[in-house]
This record gives sequence, C-alpha cells and structure tokens, in this order.
Amino acid sequence: MPGEFEVIERYFTYPAPGAVLGVGDDAALVRVERGMDVAISTDMLVCGRHFVAGADPQRLGHKTLAVNLSDMAAMGATPRWATLSLALPRIDAAWLKPFMRGFMQLARRHNTDLVGGDTTRGPLTLCVQIMGIVPSGRALRRDGARAGDDVWVSGTLGDAGLAVAAGIASMRLAPADRERLQRRLDLPTPRIALGVALRGIASAAIDVSDGLVADLGHICERSRLGAEIDLECVPTSAVLKRCPDARRAREAVLGGGDDYELCFTAPAAAREQVRQAARSARLRVTRIGRMTRAPADGPRVTVSSGGRPVKLARAGYDHFG
Amino acid sequence: MPGEFEVIERYFTYPAPGAVLGVGDDAALVRVERGMDVAISTDMLVCGRHFVAGADPQRLGHKTLAVNLSDMAAMGATPRWATLSLALPRIDAAWLKPFMRGFMQLARRHNTDLVGGDTTRGPLTLCVQIMGIVPSGRALRRDGARAGDDVWVSGTLGDAGLAVAAGIASMRLAPADRERLQRRLDLPTPRIALGVALRGIASAAIDVSDGLVADLGHICERSRLGAEIDLECVPTSAVLKRCPDARRAREAVLGGGDDYELCFTAPAAAREQVRQAARSARLRVTRIGRMTRAPADGPRVTVSSGGRPVKLARAGYDHFG
Repeated sequence: MPGEFEVIERYFTYPAPGAVLGVGDDAALVRVERGMDVAISTDMLVCGRHFVAGADPQRLGHKTLAVNLSDMAAMGATPRWATLSLALPRIDAAWLKPFMRGFMQLARRHNTDLVGGDTTRGPLTLCVQIMGIVPSGRALRRDGARAGDDVWVSGTLGDAGLAVAAGIASMRLAPADRERLQRRLDLPTPRIALGVALRGIASAAIDVSDGLVADLGHICERSRLGAEIDLECVPTSAVLKRCPDARRAREAVLGGGDDYELCFTAPAAAREQVRQAARSARLRVTRIGRMTRAPADGPRVTVSSGGRPVKLARAGYDHFG
Repeated sequence: MPGEFEVIERYFTYPAPGAVLGVGDDAALVRVERGMDVAISTDMLVCGRHFVAGADPQRLGHKTLAVNLSDMAAMGATPRWATLSLALPRIDAAWLKPFMRGFMQLARRHNTDLVGGDTTRGPLTLCVQIMGIVPSGRALRRDGARAGDDVWVSGTLGDAGLAVAAGIASMRLAPADRERLQRRLDLPTPRIALGVALRGIASAAIDVSDGLVADLGHICERSRLGAEIDLECVPTSAVLKRCPDARRAREAVLGGGDDYELCFTAPAAAREQVRQAARSARLRVTRIGRMTRAPADGPRVTVSSGGRPVKLARAGYDHFG
C-alpha cells in the first residue's frame, strides 16, 4: 500500500501554471492581479448524504468540483485555484484515478489549478475550496436586487430534482430520458461564462442548488425584498415535460435542488443586455418574474400559475431538516 | 432542531473586518494588498483519526485552526482568512458553542476572519482552509535550503509526541507533567510571529507536524540536500527530560509529530539575524545541525548523539502507513 506522500505524488500533483507555487510545500502561493478581488467558497460532500457509496467515481469527481465552480459563477468570478481534501476509507487506485480524472477534466476546462489539499483515512468525505477573481466592486452579490427588477434563470430547472425524487423508479420514463435526468444530477455544468458576462448587468445572483424558491428566497432575504414568479414561465426540459407525474415535476421545478443554473435579477431596462450576455455564453435565459417590496408577512417568494397562487409543498433542501 | 441556515447564523457568522464580504453569499470576497502573494493551505481532521470522540470541544476548536495557522507560520505568511467546513452527526449546541469558542479565540488573536464554510450531516469531520499574505518572493519555501546552512528549531520538541505515545499511561509521570504534555498536544501555538520575522533570513522552513526527521526530510527532498542533526542539541522541555522512559522520549523528540514548532534553515552568516528574529517573536530557537550535499544513497536526514550515529525507529507519521 502506498504511503501518504506517494499518494499525493501519484494522484494529487498536477501542473499549476496559474500559481507561483503549487502542491508540495506548507502552502501554495498565488498572485492576484491588481484591481481584482478574490472570491472564496467551500463545499463538503459526504458519502451517504450527497452521493451514494457506489456512485460513479468519475462523475463524482466532476460534481465535487462543479458545485464549487457554480459558486464562482454565481459571484460572476473567474475560477482560478482550488484545494481538495479527502477522507478516504482506503487508497483504491480503481476509485481515485477516475475520481481525479473527472475532477481535473473539469478543472482544466475552467483553467482552475489544483494548488493544495489534504488526504487522510476516514469515512469518505470530500471538501473543496475554490478561489476565483472578479474586478473589485463588480461581483454578483445576493444583496443588490431592487424592487421592480426582473427575475431570470438560465437553462432549464427541475431535471436534477426529478432524478433524486423518491418515486422516479416507478414513473415509467424511457431509459434514455432517465439517463438524461441522471446526467443533469451527476454532471452539472457550472455557468461560469454567464456569470462573467452578467458582471455589471445583473443586480443579484445565486446558483440554484437548494431549489428555485429557496435560493431566490436567499436573494430576497439579503436584498430585503419579496419576489413573484410565474410557474408557467419557468423553463423546463422536454424530458421533464414528458414526466407522467405532474405534481412531482412541479415540485422538482420549484423545490428540487442540484440544477446549478443561475437565478439572477436585473433592471427591466437591461433586458437586451441580459439577452446579449446569454448569447455570448451560448445559454438560454428566461424571465420568470419580478422583485417586489418586502412582504409585511408571509412568504418572501410567491408563485402563481395562470394567475392563481401555487401552494408550495417543500421550500428547498435543508441539510439538517 | 434548528435548520441549516439558522445553524449558520447562530454558530458560524462572525464579523469579518478584513474581508469585503463575509459569510452569507455564494462566496466571500477579499482584497489583497499590492505586492503581496496569497498563501493557501488546508487540513482535514477526522474523528477517531486525529482526535478521539470525547475530545474537549474547545481545545479541538483551537487545534483545528492552529494546525492550519501553523502552515502559514511555516511559509512566513500573515494569516488573514479562513473557511471551516464541518460534517456533524447532529447539531449539538453543547459541542458547537465551545468548539467555535476555541476556534474563534485563536482566530481573533491572529486577526484571521472566518469568511465561509459549509455544514452538513455526517461522521464528524473538520476541514479548514487558511489563506494568508506574504510579500511576493519572500515566502519561506521548502526548496530554498543550501548545503552548509544551519538547521534550527523553535521552542522544544517531543512533548506532544510523548502525550500520544502508547505507553504514557504506564510512565508514572506527575499529574501536572501529564497535563503539560497534554496541553502541548491539544493546544499547539502556531509560530506566526517567528515565521514573519524570518522572512528574508531563513532559506527554508517547515512546521514540525509529522516529526522532526520526517519534516526536515521534506526540506531535504525539496532542496535536494541532506541534513545532519545532533540529538544532544535538540531542545526539549523539563517535563520530557524527567520522562523515565528514555527510549520513548527520544522517539518523541525525533519522530513524534504535533509539536508545531518551526524547523528552518539559514546561512551560518545569518545566525545573529536568526536570534534577533527569535527575540522579536519572544521565542527560543536552537541550532541543531546543518544541511549537507545530498547523500548518494541512504537516509536524507542522519542523526548523531555524542558523535555516534542514532538509528531511527520511526521516521514520522504517515496517514496511510
């Protein structure tokens, strides 16, 4: 069995052209261009909670980094550096190699250097910290929305949520449709280019990881506003539209997490700029509602469909709920 | 039981005066002064591996941050920002409050802001990433030592290693001595001030976390050199000198980890500057050997005592050994 340092050398040491010093010292060293702020975020994934024990390791490597890159997208930051800490039950090349292949393929696609980490024995747990850069004062924060702003989302919502829905096995979906949903859950695409293109255009942004209503609720809370969205405007995939269980599909669209699309706000006067940003990122964006004054009481986010209010079964994912 | 966001609000949200934006968005934002590089390091601590299930939570909070701050010390970096990710079996205020007290007391002492994190349910696992700043080109790297340089250590070595030694219970140490050893293990003091004072003076540095011989071995490896140290010169505490088991004491001095002192190299011409740096950091430093050309074969680090070679039982701690 290889020792710790051999493990680091063999599985976790990659060129880090964007760093002054990469893996192998007490710390990595990086240099930040003048006029840039550093965006810092971290996510921990635990076996049995965020993924199942038999999860495909290459997809898991992708997802572990993707959920962190998605936080950079939601800030309008360009990802640059990441660290990866793992607790592993054992050193298993048949798991580590594909895991790191999935992780590094996505990292390279976004010019993100793996600059450090830690490896220890323990119950399978993955922790990534990601750092990106964004021009000072131009980050997409949650607290910048204004009453009257449009609410937008990228891509389509609900596929990943449908893939984790308890009853999906009984839904008689075509195998190809089932695989499409599974891929949306396992291989999310961080919307980096869109986040960068929305700098100076969007007034607030978040990535949809806990569910549309819950995540838009975070923008409301930080911006001290309410939001109204129209369910009929929320974009969904052809697969989701084919789902025979309309109630489950609706819950996945509004409350399912893991889509990792961007939900953002922008002034109505900026609609053409938003569409231009989306074109430059080769991504569809859809206007689904608007920001309102903070409601005196009741829910921050209200949903209607054809003018009638929609009652929400489940607001989003709570890790201790 | 409080929800995830209430947990974040209640236990993990603190003022972050050194950040542009702290906890509560998709990412924190920090600004780096011109001419500074960012040093980045991460450590993961797993229950049952790095600490026992019943470990005092306040001491554990201290140690979780201390081991990361120690990496900043070893780089000569000034710590600035940290993230903390935790997998917790449950939300237990009686554990979380003292844990965060220990963590934040040490953080405040070093002006280090907690700027982000993640909390999830899972087997107790703690992961910190620390970021500090150091003037560009002045970091204390492992690869800068030269043949003929002195080898130095700060403080005393072996106490923490003795506290974890399997046979300590049978050693008939005085209770006060036992508590002193336990405190060295549980409450390490990161040598931040010394690391900063050694910028431009030390040629290489590392913190002693895996054991003196193993850690000095990392400097040798990265600098492509050997090292000779004299066991009789290695500074030890009065408690360690009173230890009735001389063999165990020696193993703790050479191979015990967890002391978190600095081991560093500097040219012989810089001895007075080294002593001046230590005085400014109010810390003892001791010259214990010198760097040599790389040995053609055999161990990188050789140890002698009174001119006679010392055979090493155990080179250091290997997390997968």
